[in-house]
Amino acid sequence: MKFSISKDVFLEGLQKVQHVVSSRTTLPILSNVLLVAKEGRLIFTTTDLDVGITGSVEASIEKEGATTLPAKRLVSIVKELPSSEVEVTVDAKNYATIKSGPSTFKIIGLSDSEFPPLPDFEGAKTFKIPQADLKNGLKKTSFAISTDETRYVLNGIFASFREGKLALVATDGRRLAMADTDLEFPASHETDVIIPSKAVQEIQRLLGDSGEVEVKLSDSQISFTVGDTFLASKLIEGNYPNYRQVIPGDSNERVVISRDALLETVRRVSLLSSDKSNSVKLIFSENQIEVTANSPDVGEAQETLEVSYGGPNMQIAFNPEFLQAPLRALDTDNIYLDLIDEMSPGVIRIDGSFLYVLMPMRVTN
Amino acid sequence: MKFSISKDVFLEGLQKVQHVVSSRTTLPILSNVLLVAKEGRLIFTTTDLDVGITGSVEASIEKEGATTLPAKRLVSIVKELPSSEVEVTVDAKNYATIKSGPSTFKIIGLSDSEFPPLPDFEGAKTFKIPQADLKNGLKKTSFAISTDETRYVLNGIFASFREGKLALVATDGRRLAMADTDLEFPASHETDVIIPSKAVQEIQRLLGDSGEVEVKLSDSQISFTVGDTFLASKLIEGNYPNYRQVIPGDSNERVVISRDALLETVRRVSLLSSDKSNSVKLIFSENQIEVTANSPDVGEAQETLEVSYGGPNMQIAFNPEFLQAPLRALDTDNIYLDLIDEMSPGVIRIDGSFLYVLMPMRVTN
Repeated sequence: MKFSISKDVFLEGLQKVQHVVSSRTTLPILSNVLLVAKEGRLIFTTTDLDVGITGSVEASIEKEGATTLPAKRLVSIVKELPSSEVEVTVDAKNYATIKSGPSTFKIIGLSDSEFPPLPDFEGAKTFKIPQADLKNGLKKTSFAISTDETRYVLNGIFASFREGKLALVATDGRRLAMADTDLEFPASHETDVIIPSKAVQEIQRLLGDSGEVEVKLSDSQISFTVGDTFLASKLIEGNYPNYRQVIPGDSNERVVISRDALLETVRRVSLLSSDKSNSVKLIFSENQIEVTANSPDVGEAQETLEVSYGGPNMQIAFNPEFLQAPLRALDTDNIYLDLIDEMSPGVIRIDGSFLYVLMPMRVTN
Repeated sequence: MKFSISKDVFLEGLQKVQHVVSSRTTLPILSNVLLVAKEGRLIFTTTDLDVGITGSVEASIEKEGATTLPAKRLVSIVKELPSSEVEVTVDAKNYATIKSGPSTFKIIGLSDSEFPPLPDFEGAKTFKIPQADLKNGLKKTSFAISTDETRYVLNGIFASFREGKLALVATDGRRLAMADTDLEFPASHETDVIIPSKAVQEIQRLLGDSGEVEVKLSDSQISFTVGDTFLASKLIEGNYPNYRQVIPGDSNERVVISRDALLETVRRVSLLSSDKSNSVKLIFSENQIEVTANSPDVGEAQETLEVSYGGPNMQIAFNPEFLQAPLRALDTDNIYLDLIDEMSPGVIRIDGSFLYVLMPMRVTN
């Protein structure tokens, strides 16, 4: 195997796949990147057995072949190469020689025959989704994915392909984010799946603002194809909770708030929320919210925000991080905060497809 | 106590002193910054009992007074304040109210009467040193300070005021860096002191490229005055090793090397030095150095560097980090590497005041 490639293109190919490399050392080949030189392209593949990714770049192939090399070390070497021209030769024992300017690196690889293949999606259900729609939907929901590994069904995004829509839902039991988008597909394709957090992170890296992503679903796997990059992942098996039960019915009050101003205010005031209660209190009166926090032995913070509100005086407390997260993920000027009473969940909505249900915290006076 | 100040100036004052705050929680007041509002200025002081620092900024003082407030929390609050105008009021119970735009923060402080005073330098020896000279000397030596706390006399810079010179020396037993500068002072001022690492770091932050720094030495303390900022530190007590014994006598070979090229080459090649040996080998032949490293089970790296060298073929191995550190601290185009033989220390010199002695590592063939 022998090829020439520019340093930047080599790095670009490696960077497409480097995040999937396994950190488990039980199977050393999972720390390696599979390199295949074929038909004028260099193809990169990594997998941790849960998620796998493959992509390619152009290269000048002198001799076709395949090998696997330690991914992280290869990235660190290619980054430091002194010249833009790189020549790579791999012998039959998977000993790779990388030459660039005055530098020569030799790295010991492992045979490509031991590298686990990515799953096959023959006969899988296929969906075509505008990249911007999927990107947008994942951005509006992924921050609410649970990181509690004891509740593994919540460690991903619930994707429901039903009634001409793709609905994306994430929750950790204390807040829930949902966004949906219209999507055409045959009725026989209707299904619900849970996409694991790691695959969500990876596909978010790949999605752009134009073009389509091809999504394939088999019984236990999902794949995403963006251009010539292919990402495959196991699905999370299990029953996702019925999220529709969590969404409160009619609210009593709607508050119209500048997204940016609320984000800034909560960030500042939360500097004095205590580690123990970890809450900020929102005190509503006519056309204003007073946001407060206090921390015993340290002090307190208070800030007043002009809003559009005509309801009765009331107060409700939220976890400041959970209140800020959706505000950071959105891009509208205003948000609506729909409230029932001081003890019921608040709901954040926007003009557009988005819904965020947030449990209040106990208010102590 | 009451004053108004702009957010940026408030932050500037805090940032001058914030690094000295103690992380020990046994004495809570050491986590606080002493604020004194007096004669149109706001004076900031912090100390961890080893090092203390004080500086001031202009402020509009409405009522003079003093208090102490939690330093790190105050910095985080001032950074986030929404308006450039800040008004601070402190009551008799050291309860501070910070108002800025729509925000109000209240923080609980501690009485300034409990704040330990900085040491007194009445009758101390005084030196005036050009800031650029001291800055330059510290930069060329401080990287070699030992971090091994069991050898506390090496946890600082040895400063020797002798024979019309200030010599600065740092060593960790495996390498030694020295720089000196001409300095006028009375013969009665001749002395040697060890300045602790923390004070070295702090004074490096304060020094600029022009003007003088006033240095005062008492029996157990040193102080630096730069503008209106005053830094005081305990000295390290103990006997510094006789560093002159470490400097090799006449060398046999002098190699002239581009500083930048050597730095780049060693950085690249050391990517494949093993964690165990942690060395790079320099193989000298006519007008070139071949730099190599190898790591069992991983691979090897090799790079050739053009230099000016006319001596016999030889090879010598160094710790790559210890070889790079002085190259990063220097700014000359070329360095001289003076060698005796493969087992003796190498010495890096430049055109100018600098000397770096580096112990070789055992070469295995």
